[in-house]
This record gives sequence, C-alpha cells and structure tokens, in this order.
Amino acid sequence: MTDVVSLYVNDGLPEEEIARQAALYGPLAEDIRALIPLGISSRADDDEIRRAREHLAAATEILERRRDSGPFGTRFNDAGHFRTWGNAAAGLRNAVAPPLEVHTDPDGRVWTDFHLHIGYEGPAGHTHGGVSALVLDQVLGDAARVGGSPGMTGTLTLRYRKPTPLGDLHAEAKLDRIEGRKAFVTGHIAGPDGICVEAEGIFIAPQWIADARAKFEAQD
Amino acid sequence: MTDVVSLYVNDGLPEEEIARQAALYGPLAEDIRALIPLGISSRADDDEIRRAREHLAAATEILERRRDSGPFGTRFNDAGHFRTWGNAAAGLRNAVAPPLEVHTDPDGRVWTDFHLHIGYEGPAGHTHGGVSALVLDQVLGDAARVGGSPGMTGTLTLRYRKPTPLGDLHAEAKLDRIEGRKAFVTGHIAGPDGICVEAEGIFIAPQWIADARAKFEAQD
Repeated sequence: MTDVVSLYVNDGLPEEEIARQAALYGPLAEDIRALIPLGISSRADDDEIRRAREHLAAATEILERRRDSGPFGTRFNDAGHFRTWGNAAAGLRNAVAPPLEVHTDPDGRVWTDFHLHIGYEGPAGHTHGGVSALVLDQVLGDAARVGGSPGMTGTLTLRYRKPTPLGDLHAEAKLDRIEGRKAFVTGHIAGPDGICVEAEGIFIAPQWIADARAKFEAQD
Repeated sequence: MTDVVSLYVNDGLPEEEIARQAALYGPLAEDIRALIPLGISSRADDDEIRRAREHLAAATEILERRRDSGPFGTRFNDAGHFRTWGNAAAGLRNAVAPPLEVHTDPDGRVWTDFHLHIGYEGPAGHTHGGVSALVLDQVLGDAARVGGSPGMTGTLTLRYRKPTPLGDLHAEAKLDRIEGRKAFVTGHIAGPDGICVEAEGIFIAPQWIADARAKFEAQD
C-alpha cells in the first residue's frame, strides 16, 4: 500500500518558487497536452513518424534525467497554498487533465468552463461518459471541500440526459448538506444545448474534520 | 451539434492497412503517453526545459502538417473490424487512455488488467475517483455490447469501498439483464488488496437494436 502521508506534505516552498515552477513546467505540460490530439489525428508517413519519434525520444531523455519518484501528491506551504499539479482532472503539470480551472462563487457554488479536445472521445464524436464522470467527480469534490467538508468520493451517481459534445463545456456543483462525515453534493455538465449529465455525490470527510466541525458549530 | 453519422463510418480499410497503421501510430501514442508522467515529475532546469520543448515543437510541426480534422470517431470495414482508436479509455492512438485492453470470457464476462501511471492521480498517491469511473464506464459499456445490447450510458452509479491505488489494477463487468432498450450491467475495480470501487450501469441501446433483438428472440 502506498504511504499516503508522505505524499501529503508541507514542502515549505516560498510563493516565488511556486510561481517559478508553474511558469516553467505549466507550458511543458501544455506542449505534451497539444501532442495528444496529433497522436490521434496525424496522417504523417513512416519517415515523418520516425523523425517525430526521434524528437520525442530526445525530449524524454532530457526530462527523465532528474525527476521525482512516485506521484506528485498534495503539496502545500505554511501560507496554505495547496498544489495538486498531478491531478488527473485539474493538474497544472498533467497532460491527461483538460485541465479544469475551478472557480468559487460567494454562495459556495463552484463552476468551471473548460475545453475537451478529441482525446476525450467515447461515442463517435462525443465526450466519453467516463470523462464526464471525471469532470463531475472533481467539481463535486471541490464543492464539498469549499463547503467545509473535504473528503474522498463515497458514492457518485451520474445520469446521462443527452450525448455530451466535445469542445467547450461548463460544469458546476453545490453542496446540499453535511451529515457527520458525509457531504451531499449535486452538479451537472452543460453544453451549448443545455444540461447533458447530472450528478449526485456523497463525499466522506476524515473523522477529525467532522469532529472539528461539530466542535466549531457547538461554539456558535 | 456534431454530425454523429459522419463519424461512424465504414472506411473500407483492408486488414493489412489497419495493421500497418496500428504498427505506425500505436508506438507514437506510446511515446506521447510516456511523456505525461515526466511532465509531472521532471526536475529539469530552465535550459533543459527549453531544449525539451524545442524537440516537442519540432515533433508537433511534423505531426500537424497532414492530419484528419475532428475526432477519430468509430471506423469499421466490411469484415466488421471496428476501430475506436481515439477512445479516452481504450484508444490505441490516444495518450489519455491507459489504454485498456478488454477481454471477453465465453460466459460474457469482460475484464481487463491495466496499469495507471502517476497521471491518473486524485487523492495523494491514489487513483482519481473519476478515472475509476472512466475505466468502469468503458468496461460496463463493453459488457452491454458483448451481451448484445450496445448503447450509450444512461446511468452509472459508483460506490467507492476503499482508496484505489495507482499501478497495476483489474476491472471486470458482466451483463445482468436486458429490458427493452436497457442493459443492466455490474462490475468493479480491484487492486492488490481487493475490490476498491463497485459500479452499476444502465446502457441505452438504439431503438432499432432493441427491435432487432425482439424480432430475433421471437424466432427462437
């Protein structure tokens, strides 16, 4: 079993160093992300593919010389600046992620406008049902966290109302209520023609967070 | 709205041409896939990142010269060989996909042993709940198709029993029953320590498939 604690670390990075790393590694992830649709759609011939792969091998050789072992994890500093740059839905350094940039409204609603390229396809020409689930799991989890009950997904229920197109989409979620360790959250994904997928999730907070919340609320 | 029909095409490719394309473009996708974890974990400095990005730009320039427009879609030939090479979970040409290679047992159970690299992270050191959903949506959908009722996801319910590690995992699913256009399917993901996520899905077949099935069963 992976040692979770060691991947949830205060690495004490100063803000300027975080900004430097974001400016250095963010564009690298964007370059890799941009290659994914070309891997699917390119009609390059044998010779062109050979030359393209030589460049990819050269880049790989440079990048792997010095690197962290294991997953990125969750890193933070004393200022409470959290980084989950390896996150599959929202990670700044992760080319698997669209990436989602999730915003919070004053009323606790979280939302994101995002773009899905052709690498997120499932049914011909449409978004994969599991990619919609990836987006919604992330956004609903963020709504639980913003609502004061951060936790792991307990259950997630998705109702697919109509096919989700690729391209520009919107997702949002809000916390319905908290009961002990459980946060109940709802949300949806919408395309240009309206809501495509609806979701309900229950996110389970660690016991110490539920205890802290109960203590805090008793003081009100 | 995307024109679905145009992305579901019999392109009449001979088997040898399909094999040639798989051998040419499959390794390209593998190269791009291998870059994703390095995008997350590399500690390369400014100069190294600059040189790596020059190589990625050179590869991009070669690959984008000639390419298909739009998503890969679903392509097939007269022999009934289907290709969904752009699929986000299983696509041979798609670096977003692990990719899943899904097998079918004689009793209709479908299963896959697969590997998730660090680009599939959610909670620190663990698989993103939405990536588990992506895998299960694909495998459950395959079980519906193998069971004779191919369709789009209608509802998907996921219960997260314990954190899913990254690395080597197993997923499987089987059709429970078909009622009209609805196929009811169950499945799970397991890690080295047992089942992590359970799923139930309802997949909705097109009306003409349900009609053909009813006609066929009436003949028995």
